[in-house]
Amino acid sequence: MNADIIPDIIIGRLPVYLRALQQLAERGVQTTSSQELGEIIGISAAQIRKDISQFGEFGKQGTGYSIAFLMERLQTILQVDRVWDVIVVGAGDVGHALAHYNGFANRGFRVSMLFDNDPNKIGAQVGKFEILSMEVMAEKIKQNKIKIAMLAVPASAAQETADQLVKAGVKAILNYAPISINVPDDVHVQYIDPVTHLQRMTYYL
Amino acid sequence: MNADIIPDIIIGRLPVYLRALQQLAERGVQTTSSQELGEIIGISAAQIRKDISQFGEFGKQGTGYSIAFLMERLQTILQVDRVWDVIVVGAGDVGHALAHYNGFANRGFRVSMLFDNDPNKIGAQVGKFEILSMEVMAEKIKQNKIKIAMLAVPASAAQETADQLVKAGVKAILNYAPISINVPDDVHVQYIDPVTHLQRMTYYL
Repeated sequence: MNADIIPDIIIGRLPVYLRALQQLAERGVQTTSSQELGEIIGISAAQIRKDISQFGEFGKQGTGYSIAFLMERLQTILQVDRVWDVIVVGAGDVGHALAHYNGFANRGFRVSMLFDNDPNKIGAQVGKFEILSMEVMAEKIKQNKIKIAMLAVPASAAQETADQLVKAGVKAILNYAPISINVPDDVHVQYIDPVTHLQRMTYYL
Repeated sequence: MNADIIPDIIIGRLPVYLRALQQLAERGVQTTSSQELGEIIGISAAQIRKDISQFGEFGKQGTGYSIAFLMERLQTILQVDRVWDVIVVGAGDVGHALAHYNGFANRGFRVSMLFDNDPNKIGAQVGKFEILSMEVMAEKIKQNKIKIAMLAVPASAAQETADQLVKAGVKAILNYAPISINVPDDVHVQYIDPVTHLQRMTYYL
């Protein structure tokens, strides 16, 4: 398997397969089929078989996929067979929601710190986190070798904050600000913008 | 132009183009190129030209795209040249963030109501919204001809709540619960799950 030749579009679907497998595993199911996965996810069974076969032979004719085995392989491929510390930058509504979110557990991530630059917020408690000053952010990122940040600052501050994160060593940014940010080629950015998802659906209404 | 033949993958990129164009327009820029858009978004200029050409001839050789004209066309195509009322279901952290979010303005959407089923929350004020009981949700959806809902309930309640929304007439659901939901073929679902985005990036780290 040569990681370089797997198209990004397939990589993007693997987390969705993994989520569906975890959902089945939580119900106590032990094997599944591309048909069943397809119905859960809303992708064709043929597409799922094709995507998964890129990484080796997993399914057995007639018996389907072992959920535990396929989960383990996907977790290894996506490098979430470990736990990544992730910081949250911006302690507004979205930052609060991320600090409280319990959907990270067992999926490879743990929120480790929460930052803001508002003197009225710094030092306050959000769940189990004390809001830290963005003045110490670069230092904390370096000390703790943080590679992943969730950016939940206002759009007007997003680029400047992203620059600080990148300079401190962050290599992956999940950007909640509704604005495109520029980063060097070796830094990955994904966007969470409810409006782009909504607009994608209104096309069909 | 036959809407049926435009692949969904292209439709999914149009909101991202629209966001970048609005970003440029807000800076007072009047024309742009596929090259410039590509740099903002991180997609190749060739891909952008190809996608946009599906909908007609927009660019002029040498002068590029008129931002106002292309924005207007994309807004029409995506049916966001109007304002859609959207309801928020679930008044937890994510529901609060969505009720306060100011990124919907000028992008085709307006939060119109906020629902929860917790008696301790019903009647409370979140920004300009009073939290309404989910017991009156179906009735309010029908009365106001709501077609779009943002689902921010716990995973354990997501399928049941989605069923209620669909029965009341909702045709598009933006699901924040980290679980796949089943809906009829004529209902559209998009997912906002930070973990799938994070996992897509850890593959490359």
